[in-house]
Amino acid sequence: MSSKPSTPLTVVIMAGGRGTRFWPRSRSRLPKQCVALTGERTLIQRTVDRVEGLVPHEQVLVVTGADMADAIREQLPELPPENILVEPRGRNTAPCIAWATVELVRRYGGDAVMAVLPADHLVDDEKAFQSALKAAAHAASSTNGLITLGIEPTRPETGFGYIRCGEALGEWGDRSFHHVQAFVEKPDQQTATEYLASGGYYWNAGMFVWTVDAIRDAFHAYLPNTWAAMARLEFDPSAFSELWDSFDATSIDYGILEHAKSVYVLPAGFGWSDVGSWTAIPEISEPTEGGWVESLGCVAIEAEGNVVHAPEKLVALVGVEDLVIVDTPDALLVTRREDAQRIREVISRLEDEGLTKYL
Amino acid sequence: MSSKPSTPLTVVIMAGGRGTRFWPRSRSRLPKQCVALTGERTLIQRTVDRVEGLVPHEQVLVVTGADMADAIREQLPELPPENILVEPRGRNTAPCIAWATVELVRRYGGDAVMAVLPADHLVDDEKAFQSALKAAAHAASSTNGLITLGIEPTRPETGFGYIRCGEALGEWGDRSFHHVQAFVEKPDQQTATEYLASGGYYWNAGMFVWTVDAIRDAFHAYLPNTWAAMARLEFDPSAFSELWDSFDATSIDYGILEHAKSVYVLPAGFGWSDVGSWTAIPEISEPTEGGWVESLGCVAIEAEGNVVHAPEKLVALVGVEDLVIVDTPDALLVTRREDAQRIREVISRLEDEGLTKYL
Repeated sequence: MSSKPSTPLTVVIMAGGRGTRFWPRSRSRLPKQCVALTGERTLIQRTVDRVEGLVPHEQVLVVTGADMADAIREQLPELPPENILVEPRGRNTAPCIAWATVELVRRYGGDAVMAVLPADHLVDDEKAFQSALKAAAHAASSTNGLITLGIEPTRPETGFGYIRCGEALGEWGDRSFHHVQAFVEKPDQQTATEYLASGGYYWNAGMFVWTVDAIRDAFHAYLPNTWAAMARLEFDPSAFSELWDSFDATSIDYGILEHAKSVYVLPAGFGWSDVGSWTAIPEISEPTEGGWVESLGCVAIEAEGNVVHAPEKLVALVGVEDLVIVDTPDALLVTRREDAQRIREVISRLEDEGLTKYL
Repeated sequence: MSSKPSTPLTVVIMAGGRGTRFWPRSRSRLPKQCVALTGERTLIQRTVDRVEGLVPHEQVLVVTGADMADAIREQLPELPPENILVEPRGRNTAPCIAWATVELVRRYGGDAVMAVLPADHLVDDEKAFQSALKAAAHAASSTNGLITLGIEPTRPETGFGYIRCGEALGEWGDRSFHHVQAFVEKPDQQTATEYLASGGYYWNAGMFVWTVDAIRDAFHAYLPNTWAAMARLEFDPSAFSELWDSFDATSIDYGILEHAKSVYVLPAGFGWSDVGSWTAIPEISEPTEGGWVESLGCVAIEAEGNVVHAPEKLVALVGVEDLVIVDTPDALLVTRREDAQRIREVISRLEDEGLTKYL
């Protein structure tokens, strides 16, 4: 048994997403977080690896859906089986965090610090990541506020929500924290360019740090139905399946963070990517002949800028540019980088035509 | 035993080609003629099927190379094993025809008629094809000339050699034969357009009909070294491997047909395609959603004109046009229809880099 400090740092990995944007590599039973888009380890394995040395495995919870639970258990043998929380139905992030909060109250009490992390993102500088997490944990304990990690923007990205910084709150471990003035929606190109130029705007990476007590209080204030169900669940774990549908099906951002008072942002830069679609591959991997080609070998002749995922094959590209090519044992996708978002239309067509075995 | 008429019609299928232009579907051990580019039957199987009812299987010879002999034997169980002639080394078409001629002399004597057919072409109207073959066989017996089938051109094609018609020779079975005035090389676009407009030019499909005696006489006149080796081989079959290298390594067109006097052309139209590359697929198959897609299923969204061969998979195409996509268990090719000829460059690169297992 590892020793438990009085305010242990725990991690809750949110792993319920389907990630259809990586179809056909990701599937309903093998979603994006369970896939190795680059290298050997899957995204969720790398998420667990990333807190190694900072948080013991017993203090890492994963919340996921029934479809993908088997894959996740298999990929994370280092976690105790009881740390994999399987939602009966996916109901957005607030219920997921509420349930994890109840688990952590029961195990560690209200002082425990809880870092909420998405299962399917990538981080380049793991040391900087751990350092940010430690500083955020310290601030969470000291202020009892809700800390968000704000990623320093490196380009005028229109695909993310932004956090607008308010006045400085103070410093923890050489880092300055700020009040959050507002969470702002995905901007248009011009607005994103202005955000980048003006400074004081950070990408909302969906990474949060708070004490168990702080988030419970926030549920009480802003999602009281969820809070009531949490209170019953703390008292009677056997009522879980009956209580699950009483949890408000909303996001933690919309349900709590956009309303709560003591919300702070820790600006951080650790080479983050949400790996949102195949077009993100150039951000997270080294270029090869022909573009960014993951394969057993590649012959590229007058071919460039192609994102190729065909790890079991030799790939030959002749005269093609900026394509996305994804090969799997039963399905092959060919599209253009600019059309990569339209994979959703493919998913819809497969659903409409009853070709669900490919989903 | 089938009865042998006094001048039996025999078929010699030339099946030595590698067909690298269909890589990665075709390989050195499974060349183009052994592949089903459309439908279920391979090109060589369809070549044998095409003479069914006209020529008994015992009278069909196949000449091929050692690499592909196993595949061909397996695909043509209806042929007697001794009808598959395996060349020690490929040495162009004249030696191939010379060897087959010796075999046919021995089996049927000099009056037998011999139709020489490529193994890897397609014919749309099989009835018209058999009718042309019968008329050519009749003319070959009557004239002792060398008959070529001239395909009526349907477009100003620059990829084929042409046959220029001379004066009319006569009619056999409602068909008029002509002297061949010249075999002309692949024309440029303007010349091809002129050929099409002027009439009297036919595509040289590499399909020939003659009597065994007529082609022996032609070897005697134009390739005397080959003729001498043939004469020794008729006398002593056991000397084959020693004699093979004495056969002139040239094409039947260049070695004989371009020089011989009694060369005639039978104009014919039976929906012929030499299936020269992936770009020929639209000529020989029906269009589908997305282009010409051979697959287990296809979702095409704003995609057209694509030639896809992925018979084991679901294929999704989004926003792509005029691509050639070929999927096989160990290699995947993506190119543009206009670049399909450049597969040769891929083959060269694979050879240069020692990736011969993919050839």
